[in-house]
Amino acid sequence: MGGRPVGDGDGRPAVVVRPAPRRHDDLFAAEVWAELAERFRIIDLTGDDPAADEAALEAALPEVFAIVGQPDLPRERVARAPRLRAVLNVEGNFLPNEDYEACFERGIHVLAAGPAFAQPVAEYALGLALDLARGISREDRAFRAGEEGRVPYGGGQGVLLRHADVGLVGFGNLGRALHPLLAPFQPTIRVFDPWLPPSVLRERGLVPAPLDETVARSQFLFVLATATAENHHLLGPRELALAPPGARLVLVSRAPVVDYDALLARVAAGHLLAAVDVWPREPLPPDHPARRLEGLVLSGHRAGGIPAAFREIGAMVRDDLVLLASGLPPVRLQPAARELIGRYRNRPVSTR
Amino acid sequence: MGGRPVGDGDGRPAVVVRPAPRRHDDLFAAEVWAELAERFRIIDLTGDDPAADEAALEAALPEVFAIVGQPDLPRERVARAPRLRAVLNVEGNFLPNEDYEACFERGIHVLAAGPAFAQPVAEYALGLALDLARGISREDRAFRAGEEGRVPYGGGQGVLLRHADVGLVGFGNLGRALHPLLAPFQPTIRVFDPWLPPSVLRERGLVPAPLDETVARSQFLFVLATATAENHHLLGPRELALAPPGARLVLVSRAPVVDYDALLARVAAGHLLAAVDVWPREPLPPDHPARRLEGLVLSGHRAGGIPAAFREIGAMVRDDLVLLASGLPPVRLQPAARELIGRYRNRPVSTR
Amino acid sequence: MGGRPVGDGDGRPAVVVRPAPRRHDDLFAAEVWAELAERFRIIDLTGDDPAADEAALEAALPEVFAIVGQPDLPRERVARAPRLRAVLNVEGNFLPNEDYEACFERGIHVLAAGPAFAQPVAEYALGLALDLARGISREDRAFRAGEEGRVPYGGGQGVLLRHADVGLVGFGNLGRALHPLLAPFQPTIRVFDPWLPPSVLRERGLVPAPLDETVARSQFLFVLATATAENHHLLGPRELALAPPGARLVLVSRAPVVDYDALLARVAAGHLLAAVDVWPREPLPPDHPARRLEGLVLSGHRAGGIPAAFREIGAMVRDDLVLLASGLPPVRLQPAARELIGRYRNRPVSTR
Amino acid sequence: MGGRPVGDGDGRPAVVVRPAPRRHDDLFAAEVWAELAERFRIIDLTGDDPAADEAALEAALPEVFAIVGQPDLPRERVARAPRLRAVLNVEGNFLPNEDYEACFERGIHVLAAGPAFAQPVAEYALGLALDLARGISREDRAFRAGEEGRVPYGGGQGVLLRHADVGLVGFGNLGRALHPLLAPFQPTIRVFDPWLPPSVLRERGLVPAPLDETVARSQFLFVLATATAENHHLLGPRELALAPPGARLVLVSRAPVVDYDALLARVAAGHLLAAVDVWPREPLPPDHPARRLEGLVLSGHRAGGIPAAFREIGAMVRDDLVLLASGLPPVRLQPAARELIGRYRNRPVSTR
Repeated sequence: MGGRPVGDGDGRPAVVVRPAPRRHDDLFAAEVWAELAERFRIIDLTGDDPAADEAALEAALPEVFAIVGQPDLPRERVARAPRLRAVLNVEGNFLPNEDYEACFERGIHVLAAGPAFAQPVAEYALGLALDLARGISREDRAFRAGEEGRVPYGGGQGVLLRHADVGLVGFGNLGRALHPLLAPFQPTIRVFDPWLPPSVLRERGLVPAPLDETVARSQFLFVLATATAENHHLLGPRELALAPPGARLVLVSRAPVVDYDALLARVAAGHLLAAVDVWPREPLPPDHPARRLEGLVLSGHRAGGIPAAFREIGAMVRDDLVLLASGLPPVRLQPAARELIGRYRNRPVSTR
Repeated sequence: MGGRPVGDGDGRPAVVVRPAPRRHDDLFAAEVWAELAERFRIIDLTGDDPAADEAALEAALPEVFAIVGQPDLPRERVARAPRLRAVLNVEGNFLPNEDYEACFERGIHVLAAGPAFAQPVAEYALGLALDLARGISREDRAFRAGEEGRVPYGGGQGVLLRHADVGLVGFGNLGRALHPLLAPFQPTIRVFDPWLPPSVLRERGLVPAPLDETVARSQFLFVLATATAENHHLLGPRELALAPPGARLVLVSRAPVVDYDALLARVAAGHLLAAVDVWPREPLPPDHPARRLEGLVLSGHRAGGIPAAFREIGAMVRDDLVLLASGLPPVRLQPAARELIGRYRNRPVSTR
Repeated sequence: MGGRPVGDGDGRPAVVVRPAPRRHDDLFAAEVWAELAERFRIIDLTGDDPAADEAALEAALPEVFAIVGQPDLPRERVARAPRLRAVLNVEGNFLPNEDYEACFERGIHVLAAGPAFAQPVAEYALGLALDLARGISREDRAFRAGEEGRVPYGGGQGVLLRHADVGLVGFGNLGRALHPLLAPFQPTIRVFDPWLPPSVLRERGLVPAPLDETVARSQFLFVLATATAENHHLLGPRELALAPPGARLVLVSRAPVVDYDALLARVAAGHLLAAVDVWPREPLPPDHPARRLEGLVLSGHRAGGIPAAFREIGAMVRDDLVLLASGLPPVRLQPAARELIGRYRNRPVSTR
Repeated sequence: MGGRPVGDGDGRPAVVVRPAPRRHDDLFAAEVWAELAERFRIIDLTGDDPAADEAALEAALPEVFAIVGQPDLPRERVARAPRLRAVLNVEGNFLPNEDYEACFERGIHVLAAGPAFAQPVAEYALGLALDLARGISREDRAFRAGEEGRVPYGGGQGVLLRHADVGLVGFGNLGRALHPLLAPFQPTIRVFDPWLPPSVLRERGLVPAPLDETVARSQFLFVLATATAENHHLLGPRELALAPPGARLVLVSRAPVVDYDALLARVAAGHLLAAVDVWPREPLPPDHPARRLEGLVLSGHRAGGIPAAFREIGAMVRDDLVLLASGLPPVRLQPAARELIGRYRNRPVSTR
């Protein structure tokens, strides 16, 4: 079935674009949109009138070649779209409002935009790690208070990332983007990822390790795992207690992976330094004690959602649609894996 | 003359160690000191009694093989040390209290510890650049004030370092240490360094450029030049005005290279974001307006002086002394270049 | 359906292993086999008695969880294997004796071992390129004939790979393995690959280019494309004539991609130097004039099939079977892409 | 004295250029020569009339600023050149026809062109190693004899460089150029270099090791040491016997470092495979048994002397002269180290 270019009445495949909650212009640069508009017959659902959008989507089903966005796609809707070849999610996660099995049965590509956030998150994570290594943000606060040059972990307890022991909890998109950024520091990198065989890590020069060893041996620990059915509070009181004194923990993936009470207690006790970008509740309550904690770098879900990431999604969508219309497999967005789709436990995020 | 092991009465060369203003134990790990004490006859000048130290140094001159530290070394003192083969400075700079020409005439190695600070400064500079790219320290301050997630240059104006245009002003020890850390971001790196031919930069994949072009084309500008007779206020009002709007400037080398009034005015105007670790006066006056400036990351001379750097100096001293005593040239500390020694304009620093 | 561990009567999934034409012991190191035998109920088809093997395969169908090897798998056979989750080919190619569509409909993973050959082929290809750059094998022949030091393209026409213009025709497994080996030479690398959008190449620092430009601008041209329905004689007389004089061509993927008459004529004329590992007929006729051609490095299908590659296949099979049995997706072998499976035009190879 | 631009009567410094035995045009590209001719007053000694050259050199001594080449420079000649600032050798070695001590006393830079050969030799050495790993040149010979595909160490004994144990004997210019080329193969690299402290190797990710361990643990052994007073037959029968069976040895630096009788005996016995580019006598006698040895890749001093190397020398000379004339230290050619100059035991080479 594959391998042949596709088209409809006017020779161009029909594509529904329904980017909400993303904004159309955040995703698509003018030239990207122009290319899409030329090569495809676009049904553009603006999100201004949800009922009208739903109706337009329904009307388009019989001929639609691809859907960009993540509208509800129950089995019966998939069944009414006999030409549907791909659903190109513009979020980083696979949300539960789609019947993935119905798509898999038909060989419909189900794709998500997670890789677009990997580089921004990796750069942010490295920035946080260097901040924790040397006390950058704390020194800035101290300097503004007239007390520069005295932050202990930037001076007498400041450490190098060079040759450090580093741990990665999870080695998916984020870990793969972070790894090359860490490489010139020549660290020893231990990785805990139960979805990967050790060989995959070893061939990249990484050290596969159980979780406890990863935590216990790492001066810098990056929490990069997505939320799954199995990893709720993966880093709980017991695990965090294994970390060496003065360890730096960077949390940029998903909040459920860590027990925050345990983490904040460890930071308050001076055992760990931590940088945290995701929180169990966002926004955090105004009087939450984390807001006053030294040894913590606080960040409000800033790691991924920068303009470059959204534009990257638009470009990825364009690239993969062009490939699909040429009868080729998509290569830029991330395909859903049948085995994993039921394991994810991510919530929709509107700002990232 | 070279090429032969050396020794004195008890078969071991005499070495004066006078680390002040550094502290002895900051420089020398126990095992490093033990190795030195075994292989050399150490005259250890503690700094507790300066007059006694001076007398001990004078007494040691006739037999001294090497001096570790930077005591005054006028020509007549050099003349009284006929066996002197090396002066191993434990600062990052060559200070003017030594008659370098007298040493060069005798082929005495004059060495300084600048390379020990290169990695710490490079890591710090990258941390500052990532902070400026994404607003890390400003977001932390905002979060503590209950206003997380709204720092503009961390969100809608946040940028990637990946594929960015980067400029380096100066490509000495600091630039050489920073370059590999930047490489995985695949930037285009322009370099202004009037002491290097273009070929040296090109063979490393860098783009040699005049200063104006380096400033005008760089989204991230790292000021890494040492202070010299020629580069006072190299970055003045005219040059800083060339920077593209929203450029990020990281200053970690020497204050005299930049006109601070011009720089802070540019930051205050929202034209530039900047991170500054060195200041024309340290400490900065308590009421200095820089302390209240948004768009600035403030740091009080923190880039280089961490424990790892001081221990690295001790290890470098040990390594080079062992080589020299074996009749081999030193390879770890930085040799003074006859042509450059008179050009430096660095002040002594006690904390770095 | 995915996401759950699987097993049968004795709690272990049934796996048919039928490695022919590979030899069992070439693929499976003792410890790999032991692990497989422990975790799976193995039906081991030795290949000694093909009829018995066929019968055993038929008998195993109702319960088989995975098939290792590439036996005939027509639709009706797939239909009789209701528990079949994966077919793990131990060749580098997808052969036409399997009904892929029948597998895709059921979500059965169809995997091949191509990635196991990528590193050996990439190393060999680099070795051939360096040989052509400097005349290594020709110099060896000359030296044996008492005429060392006079091969022109090793001396006065010898070239560096450093900073060279390099072209890759195809950027699949082989290109991805070769790219990091080329990187430290700091070449400019143009790539022609019609299955990839330009962004995929640009983000790796490669220059996407049309075929003609890739050939015309490359001092070193690596032919790395698999044989497809579209690329027969992709490099014909017209294209080869575009190469710059003295260009070095390395052919290690598939013979049909190149017009050999045209290639050998170009080499004979002194326009190109070439290294060729695959041939339209293997073995080449004994009196074929290529055997006497200077400017050619001859190799008889040696690039991929070394012991390390076969053992890598066994390890990949083990890793992916373990993942599959744990309800996780395979990550080491290469999954068949529905869109591409009908495009390949590779022949079975018994030695590689 | 340093730090100031220099010149003579017409404002341009006088430079003697006497490239023999190199050819002038091999060294200097037209634009390089044009730049030299503009910035310096060149006294060009063609080598056609040695007596006239000597006279011209003598006549130039009172004003000469720099000498390019390696004419005899005894102490009295140096004494007659009061303005001499640099001698820029265009060979890879420091030859004994110059009074180095006389130069050092005056602070005259003594420079040699060794670094220009490092990249060509490193690329050649890697090519030889890959040839030995896979039998490339032997397969080419076999193919020409109608026996392709049967070279044992290219097939059943073929090995990967990836993840191999590699040893480097010597880590000077050659080792530093080879190291980055090896890095993407992710080898473990042991290095024996008695002129370097372990830290220099460790900070580059190399493993410092004694010679015996380096030989005994390396599947690939690169002999990269220059000839010195101490390392004659460093690799003798005892050391070579330590190599693991099937080890590959690449010899591209200097012949005296290895005992050839022992090496060839090991190759003949099938214990080692070797590639040899330098020989105790060059050319090797026509009937030397090495010419018939399988398991040997033979090469007649081809590793360094390619056009790109000679042109690099010319560019290095230009760059360093320009720096010197600006009162800056040279950075491209290699400065002589007082301690080492008496240890070298290299002979003049005319072809390299």
